Amino acid sequence: MRTQVGIVGAGPAGLLLSHLLARRGIESVVLEARSREYVEKRVRAGVLEHPTVELLREVGLGERLDREGMAHEGVSLRFDGEEHRIDFADLTGRGIVVYGQQEVVKDLIAARLADGGDVRFEVSGVRIEDVTSDPVIHFDGGELRCDVVVGADGFHGVSRACVPHTAHDRQYPFAWLGILAKAAPTQDELVYAHHERGFALYSMRSPEITRLYLQVPVDTDADDWSDARIWDELHERLGTEINEGPLLEKGVTGMRSFVTEPMRHGKLFLAGDAAHIVPPTGAKGMNLAIADVRVLADALTTHLQDGDDTGIDGYSDTCLRRVWRAEHFSWWMTSMLHTDPAADAFDRRLQLSQLRQTVSSRAAATTLAENYVGLPHGSV
Amino acid sequence: MRTQVGIVGAGPAGLLLSHLLARRGIESVVLEARSREYVEKRVRAGVLEHPTVELLREVGLGERLDREGMAHEGVSLRFDGEEHRIDFADLTGRGIVVYGQQEVVKDLIAARLADGGDVRFEVSGVRIEDVTSDPVIHFDGGELRCDVVVGADGFHGVSRACVPHTAHDRQYPFAWLGILAKAAPTQDELVYAHHERGFALYSMRSPEITRLYLQVPVDTDADDWSDARIWDELHERLGTEINEGPLLEKGVTGMRSFVTEPMRHGKLFLAGDAAHIVPPTGAKGMNLAIADVRVLADALTTHLQDGDDTGIDGYSDTCLRRVWRAEHFSWWMTSMLHTDPAADAFDRRLQLSQLRQTVSSRAAATTLAENYVGLPHGSV
Repeated sequence: MRTQVGIVGAGPAGLLLSHLLARRGIESVVLEARSREYVEKRVRAGVLEHPTVELLREVGLGERLDREGMAHEGVSLRFDGEEHRIDFADLTGRGIVVYGQQEVVKDLIAARLADGGDVRFEVSGVRIEDVTSDPVIHFDGGELRCDVVVGADGFHGVSRACVPHTAHDRQYPFAWLGILAKAAPTQDELVYAHHERGFALYSMRSPEITRLYLQVPVDTDADDWSDARIWDELHERLGTEINEGPLLEKGVTGMRSFVTEPMRHGKLFLAGDAAHIVPPTGAKGMNLAIADVRVLADALTTHLQDGDDTGIDGYSDTCLRRVWRAEHFSWWMTSMLHTDPAADAFDRRLQLSQLRQTVSSRAAATTLAENYVGLPHGSV
Repeated sequence: MRTQVGIVGAGPAGLLLSHLLARRGIESVVLEARSREYVEKRVRAGVLEHPTVELLREVGLGERLDREGMAHEGVSLRFDGEEHRIDFADLTGRGIVVYGQQEVVKDLIAARLADGGDVRFEVSGVRIEDVTSDPVIHFDGGELRCDVVVGADGFHGVSRACVPHTAHDRQYPFAWLGILAKAAPTQDELVYAHHERGFALYSMRSPEITRLYLQVPVDTDADDWSDARIWDELHERLGTEINEGPLLEKGVTGMRSFVTEPMRHGKLFLAGDAAHIVPPTGAKGMNLAIADVRVLADALTTHLQDGDDTGIDGYSDTCLRRVWRAEHFSWWMTSMLHTDPAADAFDRRLQLSQLRQTVSSRAAATTLAENYVGLPHGSV
């Protein structure tokens, strides 16, 4: 079996790349280890930044997003018992759309299949070889020869190990306990709460589903947290009205910053979580993956159709500039909002002073807002 | 001997307070351990923020400042071999004035003495007592009874110990080697350089005098740095034309953040460096001292003339809001510009991303600019 672009991983990065390439007449095959049902239900990120939304609309993926996505024009920061709104629309003229990653994935799978795209699920035993000569993806029961391979198989995928790289890794001294609850949201927008007992985040996935997070110690066992304890803690930290409801999901996620440099080796290109992850506080993970494949689709098009390698040679550097901007923003949001068990009183005062500046200086609020709604693709 | 306000220390804080009080008809005596010659020559800070300049003009101290001070409308940040100007005038409509602290002190002493003010130099053995009842300042050869005492005797003064307080202290893993050179400045504005060999700062004190700084290890002995080594290192890190000239001064200064909470005990009020110090990177030290005494002059006036204690009761909290803003800004500038020996590659990438954001986002540049030119008094 042969294709132009072999893509490992059917998450937002791999699927969108396949979609973008198909629009330029480039053939690709997507190989995914999990089932279609699994990837369509996997709950992940839920905030689409402005350039992501624009791109999805531009390439014919905006219909359900515009119908079901919840457009937000701001977020709130809560600390010291007060809530302060950061008005994205006023500060940047832009906004975000709350639309679950699994919804983006569903739309992409539907679009690829409708277009006759080749997306294969439950492909096991993937191994990438010969990436500096004639790349081949081996898997149980077959192999796929390709002009180039794209590793879009996430942080735990096999691709990254095939790229000689420097790994930048930072783990944070806390984690998030996240719940998905069948309860109508009481808030119109996300609320980021800094509280002495730890960070909390109020968010939502639909008019019926609330998504809530609590900062917890890294070694937390979700089973130690009864529903009652979770709701009590949420009420305490968020200090706002919350509708309770049955939990549809409950899980602990570690907080990590990770960057692979470079993101390419020979004819293998990494994209999305396979190359970099951010702590979720800045809502940048899926958006970075999408920015990567936008650059990659252009680069591969000129490489495969015109024999021009400028794009693929610049791919890693181009992506990494945006990646490091997002890494800094995510680290900054995380540091500003969480309570660090190692912080002393001086650190805590600086943190409070940073929070106060962010909500009282229009310039400082704008810096948060322009990062949150997303810097225009190609501008970083 | 008796007065209304006994002031310990003839630096900018103590002298300006005495001047402000005299304008409201309140009597004070300033006691200074050093000689007049010493305090008038002591080289310290050199950047007056906009609210400081406005205040000095408003109270009749602007004449020589406006004649000899060098008005700057921006500073430059240099990193990765490129210089980026932060245009204060464009971003904030305001600027700064470069005018040495010792010049402010000279103007203040001249003004106090011309007005018949009581400023005593070389007063030794100062001891402050009974600050919660009838305050008295003992000194070798006499004592001064006062309604209130103001400790404006700097970081190493005796006043702070008389205020039960929490001390917030942060020492940085580097120091500044500063030189004053008889050489005409080549730059019109300050240049802050981030370099892998360490931070460097280009500044000036007059059209004939250049003031330059190099980041050095904390345990540096200035004698280990020959003039040639200093100039070589400055050329390397600043990457810009520099006129060399004979050194008029050379010294190593530690970098420290320190805040005393609260800044008052009974009838004793701390002001300026006696209560807080900042690393010099943000040029905030003298400006904070001046902001303190502006608040204090108002508070003491209503207390002494109207028996209204609202001002003195709010003094500490009011000042500490601005102090923590300045502490955060000074820490942020310091962290962004220096090389931290303990930083890993991840930290260095974040630092570079922060620098790039600061020079490429108008909002981020404005946040730097509005802090640097000084937030309006009373606005923080």
